[in-house]
Amino acid sequence: MVSFDTIRSAADAQVDVGIRIYALAARLFPICRSITGGGVRETLRVLGQHIDITQHEVPTGTQVLDWTVPQEWNIRDAYIKNASGRKIVDFADHNLHVLGYSKAVHETMPLSELKSHVYTLPEQPDLIPYRTSYYSEQWGFCMAHNELAQLEDGEYEVFIDADKTDGHLTYGEYFHSGQSDRDVLLSAHICHPSLANDNCSGLALLACLAAALRSRKTRYNYRFLFAPGTIGALTWLASNEDNISRIDHGLIVSCVGDGGGPNYKRSRRGNAVIDQAMQYVLSSEGRRGIIQDFSPYGYDERQYCSPGFNLPVGLFQRSAFGTFPQYHTSADNLDFISPENLASSYGMIMEVIDILEMNWTPVNLFPKGEPQLGRRGLYSALGGDKAAGETAMGYLWVLNLADGSHSLLDIAQRSGMSFRDIARAAQLLRANGLLAEAVS
Amino acid sequence: MVSFDTIRSAADAQVDVGIRIYALAARLFPICRSITGGGVRETLRVLGQHIDITQHEVPTGTQVLDWTVPQEWNIRDAYIKNASGRKIVDFADHNLHVLGYSKAVHETMPLSELKSHVYTLPEQPDLIPYRTSYYSEQWGFCMAHNELAQLEDGEYEVFIDADKTDGHLTYGEYFHSGQSDRDVLLSAHICHPSLANDNCSGLALLACLAAALRSRKTRYNYRFLFAPGTIGALTWLASNEDNISRIDHGLIVSCVGDGGGPNYKRSRRGNAVIDQAMQYVLSSEGRRGIIQDFSPYGYDERQYCSPGFNLPVGLFQRSAFGTFPQYHTSADNLDFISPENLASSYGMIMEVIDILEMNWTPVNLFPKGEPQLGRRGLYSALGGDKAAGETAMGYLWVLNLADGSHSLLDIAQRSGMSFRDIARAAQLLRANGLLAEAVS
Amino acid sequence: MVSFDTIRSAADAQVDVGIRIYALAARLFPICRSITGGGVRETLRVLGQHIDITQHEVPTGTQVLDWTVPQEWNIRDAYIKNASGRKIVDFADHNLHVLGYSKAVHETMPLSELKSHVYTLPEQPDLIPYRTSYYSEQWGFCMAHNELAQLEDGEYEVFIDADKTDGHLTYGEYFHSGQSDRDVLLSAHICHPSLANDNCSGLALLACLAAALRSRKTRYNYRFLFAPGTIGALTWLASNEDNISRIDHGLIVSCVGDGGGPNYKRSRRGNAVIDQAMQYVLSSEGRRGIIQDFSPYGYDERQYCSPGFNLPVGLFQRSAFGTFPQYHTSADNLDFISPENLASSYGMIMEVIDILEMNWTPVNLFPKGEPQLGRRGLYSALGGDKAAGETAMGYLWVLNLADGSHSLLDIAQRSGMSFRDIARAAQLLRANGLLAEAVS
Repeated sequence: MVSFDTIRSAADAQVDVGIRIYALAARLFPICRSITGGGVRETLRVLGQHIDITQHEVPTGTQVLDWTVPQEWNIRDAYIKNASGRKIVDFADHNLHVLGYSKAVHETMPLSELKSHVYTLPEQPDLIPYRTSYYSEQWGFCMAHNELAQLEDGEYEVFIDADKTDGHLTYGEYFHSGQSDRDVLLSAHICHPSLANDNCSGLALLACLAAALRSRKTRYNYRFLFAPGTIGALTWLASNEDNISRIDHGLIVSCVGDGGGPNYKRSRRGNAVIDQAMQYVLSSEGRRGIIQDFSPYGYDERQYCSPGFNLPVGLFQRSAFGTFPQYHTSADNLDFISPENLASSYGMIMEVIDILEMNWTPVNLFPKGEPQLGRRGLYSALGGDKAAGETAMGYLWVLNLADGSHSLLDIAQRSGMSFRDIARAAQLLRANGLLAEAVS
Repeated sequence: MVSFDTIRSAADAQVDVGIRIYALAARLFPICRSITGGGVRETLRVLGQHIDITQHEVPTGTQVLDWTVPQEWNIRDAYIKNASGRKIVDFADHNLHVLGYSKAVHETMPLSELKSHVYTLPEQPDLIPYRTSYYSEQWGFCMAHNELAQLEDGEYEVFIDADKTDGHLTYGEYFHSGQSDRDVLLSAHICHPSLANDNCSGLALLACLAAALRSRKTRYNYRFLFAPGTIGALTWLASNEDNISRIDHGLIVSCVGDGGGPNYKRSRRGNAVIDQAMQYVLSSEGRRGIIQDFSPYGYDERQYCSPGFNLPVGLFQRSAFGTFPQYHTSADNLDFISPENLASSYGMIMEVIDILEMNWTPVNLFPKGEPQLGRRGLYSALGGDKAAGETAMGYLWVLNLADGSHSLLDIAQRSGMSFRDIARAAQLLRANGLLAEAVS
Repeated sequence: MVSFDTIRSAADAQVDVGIRIYALAARLFPICRSITGGGVRETLRVLGQHIDITQHEVPTGTQVLDWTVPQEWNIRDAYIKNASGRKIVDFADHNLHVLGYSKAVHETMPLSELKSHVYTLPEQPDLIPYRTSYYSEQWGFCMAHNELAQLEDGEYEVFIDADKTDGHLTYGEYFHSGQSDRDVLLSAHICHPSLANDNCSGLALLACLAAALRSRKTRYNYRFLFAPGTIGALTWLASNEDNISRIDHGLIVSCVGDGGGPNYKRSRRGNAVIDQAMQYVLSSEGRRGIIQDFSPYGYDERQYCSPGFNLPVGLFQRSAFGTFPQYHTSADNLDFISPENLASSYGMIMEVIDILEMNWTPVNLFPKGEPQLGRRGLYSALGGDKAAGETAMGYLWVLNLADGSHSLLDIAQRSGMSFRDIARAAQLLRANGLLAEAVS
């Protein structure tokens, strides 16, 4: 148990943390990431300037659970030129322009044929969509529907200088060591190219949070994972089967820079401590967070909460993926996220960590009747005062429910009191020899 | 397991099934049934023209659980004549005119004495009530209150040519053999005389449903029971104690020809699969079915759900017994039921049977992480498409909840998806080697 | 099992019981009680004129659980005189004037110093507050704020003739012996001085209730406890650890003379039979009683429901403590309580006792199918009557749920029928050999 006093409120550190997260997200934004390749490595290099990331390289062809690590994809250049030789689409302008994992191509073809390789959003005609084709051999471009509509008939030169070669799948880990042998998993997907909210925001937030934890003695180990979606999570799970039982709590972090939500999707278990803690934080301080039950579509909670693992891992977001118009388009840019929103997301996650750190299950050592709080200086000397009982309510609730089956978070929820007040009461009762921690 | 494709929607067969059920109910309507006697046999003979019914004859005096099979009652004629010798009540006009199980009588008596043997409905003065006295030695007539009121003082001749003799209690069974050794029980009471909804409708519907099942390979055995209420069900239970544990699901069918409801009364268990399935069907396709908890008054669910059996047997009705003004009166006639209502009742029961047939409990054979659906052709090749995830939701829900503790019906309810979509997804996953059936 | 017929409705005895309770409360009101001392003994002496109370004397210094029995406090006189020698506060006028457990004092001091020893209620300036200081060595007076405000500067003589000496803690018990070895605990705190509702009302009500039980054969033993709050309950618990497992139900009774509520605070278990029974009584007959979950602040339910005992003990009140303006002030006087309110509180507690006495868990001896009620004279002979089923519903509900896991109170709640009707049906079924009592 870490002492109560060493756990400072996250609020102090939050003043300019939003600016730092935003600046880091802005540095990550231009990098062309995919599920493998140089973009992931460059992203880890930038993150590594803040925290000591361990970079893992898993060879193409490695079997990971039901999947196989694919070939590595790297892209150098891509464009479409019209008959006049003018680049009407240029990868250098925006990395969303190229279908992710496109194979190389260099051909000239009429507009009609070109169109079968071009993805647009007719209902959002000024935006470039984000499209990938990881496991099917294709090539393609993405562009604004209005620009496609203006193209005149004629021959177009398409050029994609990319290759898929045997190489590696890359992911990064940062490990903050705590006093126990129990882990908290914090994970953000690293595979999306220039999409600011999804998920430069999550990568930058976790990196800054990891940096902040360095100065803190914690009870839990904190395992930060920066890995490509799906195949990265599967690779990590396949490589860490022996450690998985140590994960007591986990959180997927994505889309944490916009002003929506906050949203929390429960773990498959539905009533894990992380679910309780997130629900507590998202309903305290006037927040009207949205809590949704687990569903098997989303980010890597899909993998962590598959029935064979069923880990207590939930998903924290501001706007929920797929529900905001900027989602998976070029409008998910640096204007869509803000330091203020990043700071408040950071604050909520830090509050959850505070709860995980301070939560424990007390056992009343004087369970028969109330122990005499007065002679221990824990109770107002003056009886009959209407307010006197109120001030002692924290002690009374903790003592009454300290039967080894209620955590402090349970007691806070049952009593309607704040977790902080309950935790403080429990600490003082313990210091006075009235409580012990339950053997789990 | 029957294959998904062989189970056709009941909708195709439903076009004229309502007409057929109505025609059969109309043939059954005039027959004077009671809990024993020739009327039951004649009813089974008519039903037997549609399906091969096994007729059981249980002798008077046989002990069945706490009851004894009563003497058999048969009636040939009955009337009341006024002083002028005119028949003012005639059994030949309507078999409700005679109190069920009346003993024989032939007397002349003043109106005042006659009245103590006449049952009417003062609040529905034009209708003849339905009354019986199975276990108490009485005689009586039923008539419209208005007609009774018009009778002048004077002597009346009452004549009932009926007898109670040692004979048999009669009931019929039809057995549709399935591929497993597990049973579904479908039961309708056969003891009511000329009451169309209660229960010519249920008898006719079950007979047509049994006929329709003949051409269908099913997983379950379907055991159709046409038996008198209470004593018939008790007799069947007493005779089948060894088979009762094979009943996985059961439904009592009555009052299925009017336009009310639909109503479903849960089994005593409250959460049996039949309860789930009925609730699903009665809340799908815009139906606003009424679901009620079990109560110990009603039809033969009273016996099947007695605490010593506690079978998963519910009650399906349109208007609930006792709640419609025609109930147990001469207004429950062939005008009160319609082919359309019979067809829709039939359709709902067939939907429930479809669910029972298609429902199974899957176990994910690749429970760690998601299996790679793409290389099995089960997943859109193109990532990033907002709609792509939606189409795959059936696979994801089934895989995620396929831990051996969720049936497909559970998964449909948890996911909010249709049972049909979930069942189709499960079938495809199983065909691809990703699922097995849980060992129960 | 006590027979149903011997348990008369409490209503008959209720006509003038309110007057008797009020008269007794009025006799108790002037006595200066505290947690020890002559006032408690005098109170027990008055109660002892109604019932044979066993008086227990526990020596100062006795260890009771985590507490120690304190010195005994007795007070003879107390006043404040102004410079003219006029008594401006006199203990003889009202025993609330002295801080409970004040040490002796006889000094002269200026007004400014006096004020640090005087307690008032600025927001209720005409009322004298009730204050105590049991475990901290102080002296003090309580008075109306308006009177304090009118005091002129000058010297005041303060005099308290009280002593704390080694002596005893006193409590009383009355035991009503029933036919079983299971107990019901009924407890009222005896430690408050001249406060009519809190708790002369509870003491007087329980004494009259105990007197009424004398003429009644009961299944349970009834253990009445008149003990000082907290230390008295702890002392009793410490002295009765071996008997505690015999307590099946318990009720703390306080503040039962005003017109508020009724209020019931559930035991810590939340679903004990006493909780069920109280909820039933407080929601029947048009009462809109308030049911609150357990919380660890209040009266001696704090001790009985501490996690090491966790007894099924709830709290019955009219207005809830701390919520009414008269609470712990001189306005909680004999005008605040009334015979009518005392009578209705008495009636509700007696109804709960009736339920506890009549409640049992039946087992159907004919659990397969319904037993034939008709041949046992328990069922209308005439079938088909729409109302016939209703009258038999009590039998059917009891028989159907008589599987050894439902008490009669459970059955009443599940069926929506009255407890009395269910209990009567169960008694008749049992008399007919259809039910037995479950072995607990």
